Amino acid sequence: MSSARERTYDVVVLGAGSTGENVADVVVKGGLSAVLVESELVGGECSYWACMPSKALLRGTEVLTEARAVDGAKQAVTGEQDVAATLARRDSFTHGWDDSSQVDWVQGAGIDLVRGTGRLAGERAVVVTDADGNGTRLTARVAVAVCTGSVGKLPPVDGLADVDPWGPREATSAKEAPARLLILGGGYVGCEMATAWQALGSQVTLLQRGDRLLPRSEPQAGEAVTEALRAAGVDVRFGVGVTAARREGTEVVLTAGDEEYRGDEVLVAIGRAARTTDIGLDTVGLEPGEYLPVDDTLQVDGLPWLYGVGDANGRQLLTHMGKYQARQAAAAIVARSRGEQVDGAAWSPTAATADATATPSVVFTMPQVASVGRTAADAREAGLPHRVVEYPIGSVAGASLFADGYTGTAVAVVDTEREVLLGVTFIGPGVAELLHAATIAVVGEVPIARLWHAVPAYPTMSEIWLRLLETWRDGD
Amino acid sequence: MSSARERTYDVVVLGAGSTGENVADVVVKGGLSAVLVESELVGGECSYWACMPSKALLRGTEVLTEARAVDGAKQAVTGEQDVAATLARRDSFTHGWDDSSQVDWVQGAGIDLVRGTGRLAGERAVVVTDADGNGTRLTARVAVAVCTGSVGKLPPVDGLADVDPWGPREATSAKEAPARLLILGGGYVGCEMATAWQALGSQVTLLQRGDRLLPRSEPQAGEAVTEALRAAGVDVRFGVGVTAARREGTEVVLTAGDEEYRGDEVLVAIGRAARTTDIGLDTVGLEPGEYLPVDDTLQVDGLPWLYGVGDANGRQLLTHMGKYQARQAAAAIVARSRGEQVDGAAWSPTAATADATATPSVVFTMPQVASVGRTAADAREAGLPHRVVEYPIGSVAGASLFADGYTGTAVAVVDTEREVLLGVTFIGPGVAELLHAATIAVVGEVPIARLWHAVPAYPTMSEIWLRLLETWRDGD
Repeated sequence: MSSARERTYDVVVLGAGSTGENVADVVVKGGLSAVLVESELVGGECSYWACMPSKALLRGTEVLTEARAVDGAKQAVTGEQDVAATLARRDSFTHGWDDSSQVDWVQGAGIDLVRGTGRLAGERAVVVTDADGNGTRLTARVAVAVCTGSVGKLPPVDGLADVDPWGPREATSAKEAPARLLILGGGYVGCEMATAWQALGSQVTLLQRGDRLLPRSEPQAGEAVTEALRAAGVDVRFGVGVTAARREGTEVVLTAGDEEYRGDEVLVAIGRAARTTDIGLDTVGLEPGEYLPVDDTLQVDGLPWLYGVGDANGRQLLTHMGKYQARQAAAAIVARSRGEQVDGAAWSPTAATADATATPSVVFTMPQVASVGRTAADAREAGLPHRVVEYPIGSVAGASLFADGYTGTAVAVVDTEREVLLGVTFIGPGVAELLHAATIAVVGEVPIARLWHAVPAYPTMSEIWLRLLETWRDGD
Repeated sequence: MSSARERTYDVVVLGAGSTGENVADVVVKGGLSAVLVESELVGGECSYWACMPSKALLRGTEVLTEARAVDGAKQAVTGEQDVAATLARRDSFTHGWDDSSQVDWVQGAGIDLVRGTGRLAGERAVVVTDADGNGTRLTARVAVAVCTGSVGKLPPVDGLADVDPWGPREATSAKEAPARLLILGGGYVGCEMATAWQALGSQVTLLQRGDRLLPRSEPQAGEAVTEALRAAGVDVRFGVGVTAARREGTEVVLTAGDEEYRGDEVLVAIGRAARTTDIGLDTVGLEPGEYLPVDDTLQVDGLPWLYGVGDANGRQLLTHMGKYQARQAAAAIVARSRGEQVDGAAWSPTAATADATATPSVVFTMPQVASVGRTAADAREAGLPHRVVEYPIGSVAGASLFADGYTGTAVAVVDTEREVLLGVTFIGPGVAELLHAATIAVVGEVPIARLWHAVPAYPTMSEIWLRLLETWRDGD
């Protein structure tokens, strides 16, 4: 460390992804000063290597699939997707991996930014080391918020690290489609990237250790996505435990039992781990590499000045939930700085209540899987009295207008005592925007009796709501 | 009348459109017997001449517009929409205007059907006259439900009836695109049909008497649709009061002041009137041609055995609201037949509460206009304390992924005392399925404070909800 500077802020935020940005923004709006510490791009994974580029890679395929499913329109789709243009469009969303516009936003929001690697250095202190080895010591009068996110996990497979595998970052930022792409893992990243790259020209092989895709969703979701991936030409394999990896020339070879799988690249998408390994957690008595243990105000247990927000706490690894937690945590920080009592009561402005029972997510496969709240399995495990109601979306007029031969399923989990929705899953083309209605119903705890008065406009796909209510009323 | 039969049912339903079908279905499920009386096609306007065929005419244009708005995908759209295939697809939804499948459904549901023209003949009596002049006298032990719907109005324009004008029926069932189509009226039928036929090959001229399109929606809706129609080549004229019409050969000529407008067909879409002219209302002391005066259980004022359901009562001329009223009215009929007290209390299972303040509707123009509840003007007129919150949908990540250069607007009307939503309007491409979230929020009276916990999945267009909440919080 050639020179050291010292600065004091109300709030020091470690990590300038969307979660950190939101913490800083809300505390500044609440009258506190804040600084963001970032070693990579301001804006984080979501903007550059996750949500935005992945959805940009998928959108062209999606809309062409939709057009080809409408007789009369499909006759106009006589050409092929322009892959180079799709990749260029993807690059436009990541601004060519340049974060100037985000930095402009940070400055405009009255937030300071320090570039470099930040590490906790005891209570309320963060030391940032920049690329030249210069250090800045930041002291937080009020709070430090750790928003360092998560990283893709590498499984303990012999030789895997040496074959230069893709993680989600490489999969979303690749400059061209590999001829043959192997994917390890059938969660949402594996499924989305299989959908995207197969359509953009790769021959994709998807290797799943377990016996279904999207294992945390309703089982109908994994079944539908498996069928669709296979119909698109993806080689989907279950029960494949890869034990070794090697390169033969430019070829990647994965070994699983007696089988070998060969490709040009391999994407490892088996899950994520806390990005807390090298951030000085040991200086405050916490375990490096672990998710931060927090309460519903996102305050770290036993360290009232420390908050863990977004992926770093492991509650829900989703951009929108990180931003939600950021809003709630920042409100708690501001309230406490004013001496107000903050107790994390359910659904209060300072508690991330939705994390536990009302988290929405969309898997942008084709079909899409949009879900919120508890699955049937979740309800069973929680011992909640419930009934599952299922209806084929294709039987709804709006769906048949949307696409010829529309296939999809809606699954609702109803609390049979309180008669409210515990969770809803929509599986089918174009269902992403159907989800927020379910999110409001679950979060708002709107009684089924009242939902009968929420009339879906005809003929939209949302009419599925009426069919679910009728199916609920008529019993199983 | 060559011969007369007599039959008695618990419930006699006049009109077998979707409203009548639903009344009959629910009362039969409730243990009553029911008969449907229909002079035309079972299934009614919506199935054959309104919702379904109009949306089928629009869907191909919509999905191609969406594909052309995504760089990478648009390069694949090198051909043109196949208009003949689009018309054939439309015909598949109307089953070639054959109602056999609906008749099968009626029989399967345990409902009787009498074809012919039904007229009230005093208390609890309906006489049906079939095409051969044979009569059947139906007596209702419990109730008669009038579900005869509405018809397109013809304005008092000299000569208009003689030019064989199109109504909504002809516009949705036309076998080919007229070269030049004149449209009288800028409500949702005029706007949708202008969108559809202009894209299918007609040169459309839309004549609106007033100074904006979609006059009952938020003003931003009419502005956006006007701009889009003009960009598509439609000649949109305001302040045009047509006073005379004539045919010159095959040409239709409309006169408005000094101006003449010429076309091959003219669609009259200036609104609808009760289809109650020739149904024997005079035999029970009601005025023929008027909407039936009903309470929230859809019971006709002063005639406890008579119900007016759907368009025939004029409350909300929308298929889905007719079906909603049908469910509520049928529940009231069944409950009263069991001697239960039914008072029409707000949001009860026997009251059509949503009619008044929570009616959703979607105009399937491009951009779409999806709205529920009260507009700002409605709130003003009702004297409700409110604030209007507006946000450009195109600024949301999900919208920018959906279409390059996405343009749209969301308008929320918030009750400033109760802090709940009074109404929401979304204007933009692909917003139809965003609506149901707003409908649930309005109907469920979900407080704004709770809506903050309903997190929109990223990156969907539904993120507009977060922006609306932030705009509300930050003031105007």
